[in-house]
Amino acid sequence: MDRRDFTRRVGWALGSLGLMPGAWAPQGRTSLRVNGPRLNQTLGRLGRIGVNPATGGINRLAFSDADRDAREYVTDLMRAARLDVTVDAAANLIGRRPGRDAALPPLMFGSHIDSVPEGGNFDGPVGSLAAIEVAQTLADHGAVTRHPLEVVIFANEENGKTGSRAMSGEVEARELDLVTASGKSIRDGMAFLGGEPGNLDRARRLTGSVAGFLELHIEQGAVLDRSGIPIGVVEGIVGIKRWNVAVDGFANHAGTTPMDARQDALLAAARFVDAAHRLTRGMAGRQVATVGRISAEPGAPNVIPGRAVLSLEIRDLEMSKIDAVFGELSGAAREIGAATGTTFAFTQFYTSHAAPTVEPLRRVIESAARDLGLATMRLPSGAGHDAQSVALFAPIGMIFVPSVGGISHSPRERSRPEDITAGANVLLQALLDLDGSG
Amino acid sequence: MDRRDFTRRVGWALGSLGLMPGAWAPQGRTSLRVNGPRLNQTLGRLGRIGVNPATGGINRLAFSDADRDAREYVTDLMRAARLDVTVDAAANLIGRRPGRDAALPPLMFGSHIDSVPEGGNFDGPVGSLAAIEVAQTLADHGAVTRHPLEVVIFANEENGKTGSRAMSGEVEARELDLVTASGKSIRDGMAFLGGEPGNLDRARRLTGSVAGFLELHIEQGAVLDRSGIPIGVVEGIVGIKRWNVAVDGFANHAGTTPMDARQDALLAAARFVDAAHRLTRGMAGRQVATVGRISAEPGAPNVIPGRAVLSLEIRDLEMSKIDAVFGELSGAAREIGAATGTTFAFTQFYTSHAAPTVEPLRRVIESAARDLGLATMRLPSGAGHDAQSVALFAPIGMIFVPSVGGISHSPRERSRPEDITAGANVLLQALLDLDGSG
Repeated sequence: MDRRDFTRRVGWALGSLGLMPGAWAPQGRTSLRVNGPRLNQTLGRLGRIGVNPATGGINRLAFSDADRDAREYVTDLMRAARLDVTVDAAANLIGRRPGRDAALPPLMFGSHIDSVPEGGNFDGPVGSLAAIEVAQTLADHGAVTRHPLEVVIFANEENGKTGSRAMSGEVEARELDLVTASGKSIRDGMAFLGGEPGNLDRARRLTGSVAGFLELHIEQGAVLDRSGIPIGVVEGIVGIKRWNVAVDGFANHAGTTPMDARQDALLAAARFVDAAHRLTRGMAGRQVATVGRISAEPGAPNVIPGRAVLSLEIRDLEMSKIDAVFGELSGAAREIGAATGTTFAFTQFYTSHAAPTVEPLRRVIESAARDLGLATMRLPSGAGHDAQSVALFAPIGMIFVPSVGGISHSPRERSRPEDITAGANVLLQALLDLDGSG
Repeated sequence: MDRRDFTRRVGWALGSLGLMPGAWAPQGRTSLRVNGPRLNQTLGRLGRIGVNPATGGINRLAFSDADRDAREYVTDLMRAARLDVTVDAAANLIGRRPGRDAALPPLMFGSHIDSVPEGGNFDGPVGSLAAIEVAQTLADHGAVTRHPLEVVIFANEENGKTGSRAMSGEVEARELDLVTASGKSIRDGMAFLGGEPGNLDRARRLTGSVAGFLELHIEQGAVLDRSGIPIGVVEGIVGIKRWNVAVDGFANHAGTTPMDARQDALLAAARFVDAAHRLTRGMAGRQVATVGRISAEPGAPNVIPGRAVLSLEIRDLEMSKIDAVFGELSGAAREIGAATGTTFAFTQFYTSHAAPTVEPLRRVIESAARDLGLATMRLPSGAGHDAQSVALFAPIGMIFVPSVGGISHSPRERSRPEDITAGANVLLQALLDLDGSG
């Protein structure tokens, strides 16, 4: 799809939201810059909360004591940046700052600070603390924007994005009973952090109530790091479909059944795993397909498997591309089944719709980076983000900074201080450009 | 290996055991025939003991009440055939019949009557009841052999061949504590059936104490059935080696890691499963290789597997061929590892040595079948049998009859009555030929 069609389809009336991307001439740009050492220092301090001293891994599980402690630290930083801090019904931390034009909807920016078990201190914190640093920089210089600003630290990103999904009205009642890695249910966890799980509708944001949203995040992949490019302009968050794949053959004695008389379900499954990789890689584009789980039944060394079960996941920015890849792979499965005397059955069990960023916000980010002398490249986000939920009620833009070695969800997750500072400056510039206030 | 070398290596001095294979001219053959209807009738009656009426599956687990009841029925049949029945220390049921020459060691023949859970009524019972029918036929005609005869119904074939392995002195003390599918330990099970687990040495048979052993059994594969040949002459029981195979790559995010930047342990494992099948099938011979078990870690649909673990089993009549196949497969693993950024580690955890039958006994079986107008083919036994244990103290021969569809260890296991009768007549003829008494 042409990018202009893409924007037209998304159909955000940016002007009606008070957004004025590109309204500035380059020479009119602000000279404001974030305080990079301060940003990296607060990031380092946050990294002491929930750290496992033995591994360096961060255990700031959503709704845990470490999560609560980290939110207290971040609340202090927000207040120091003269933000008016509240907690919404979904336990999102929200820091508000008035704009010059009270009639305009707010510009929102932020990320999350909760982590996976034994994760890193960059997935979430980089965008969260950069957002607060942007607010602090504006406060330091007495700069006032046209739009009100909202810095949001979303609750519970890692266990299902319930904070941002409550804003888009996607959280189902039964989800609240799910027990998270913290040991608490989502309901109890929200209450623990000051939310009101019984009044989740109060966290809801309606379309048009937010002028735009920007999220700075680490890439969590190796594309930027391998390219040596400091700023990624995210084209969108990829869609995901997942299937359970059951392969049925015929279980038989591994000693008495000649190689040419077998209906080996695992052999068929293995050929499918290879074909899924080969075909997906061979198609033009950046789609990915993964088999992450497999089992063979009955599962004994001396029995030819009569059944194999595996997972298939396909991701791409375009849902239609996901369907096209699946078409190729299910065609290959039919051929493999015919050649091995087995049958394949696919049951789809999960869909996450792709969330495109909007073209004008991509251009604002590119232009901000260019003015700062930073190279950019466009890329999809293969991982999910809070911006994905926000996309349902506001135009979104996302900025990526490099992950060293592409490593994430690991104690070895790391981004360079200079890249984090550069990302925060792009966030500041892009925000002011969108606001039309610089 | 040339078959004569094979026999020479095994080195049985058949003459010293009183065996006279081929001493008869064809015209000198006995006209004795088993009573086929009677044999198939007793088989049908045995099949009522331990049957699951809902499925037709046989649950005559070693040491269970059904096993005990079946042994009582079989003991009655043995006594009716004028066999002197005893139970040895390992709970093997032994029916003896004197020969003309008391100085000669006995000729032994038989099989087992215990089953796997939800098994069939042919794996074991066919050879057991045919052996008793042979003894009944001799009794009916007042025929006396030169050698004493021993009909043996081995105890607990399906849970580790402890009956026959006690005869060869292979049962280790710690095995007696293993709990079998019956719920009883082997020790308690042996005592339950009248054995003496504390005096297992008393069941031991020394080399030279048994003149020869013949076992009739269903093939449990589809080779005879597909060929339309009623009698299989078993070349030996295949050897088995098993390995755990660990494939190490690098776990990573399935969304953010491009297809060309992955070290996917499951992709490497899948290529190995395919290569193992292809290479093993491509080599000359009847070796088989099986991957029956597989898992991927961490095992989530959205994580590229960093580790895959699978089982590899190779079987052949020659241990050296097993090693040659393994050499091919481990070479392929090295190439797959280099291409996918993964490493393979093989840990062998099980070896079962091949048990060849002896060439003169194969020829006796072939000659008996020929005189009965029955076509034969030579084939390995891919499954283990009691004869494998007996091979350590006596020369063995094995006769296979066809399994319909190659199905075994299943309620659908079946062999045709006429094939069972034919197999029993071959057993009778071969026995008399070996004895030199016909």
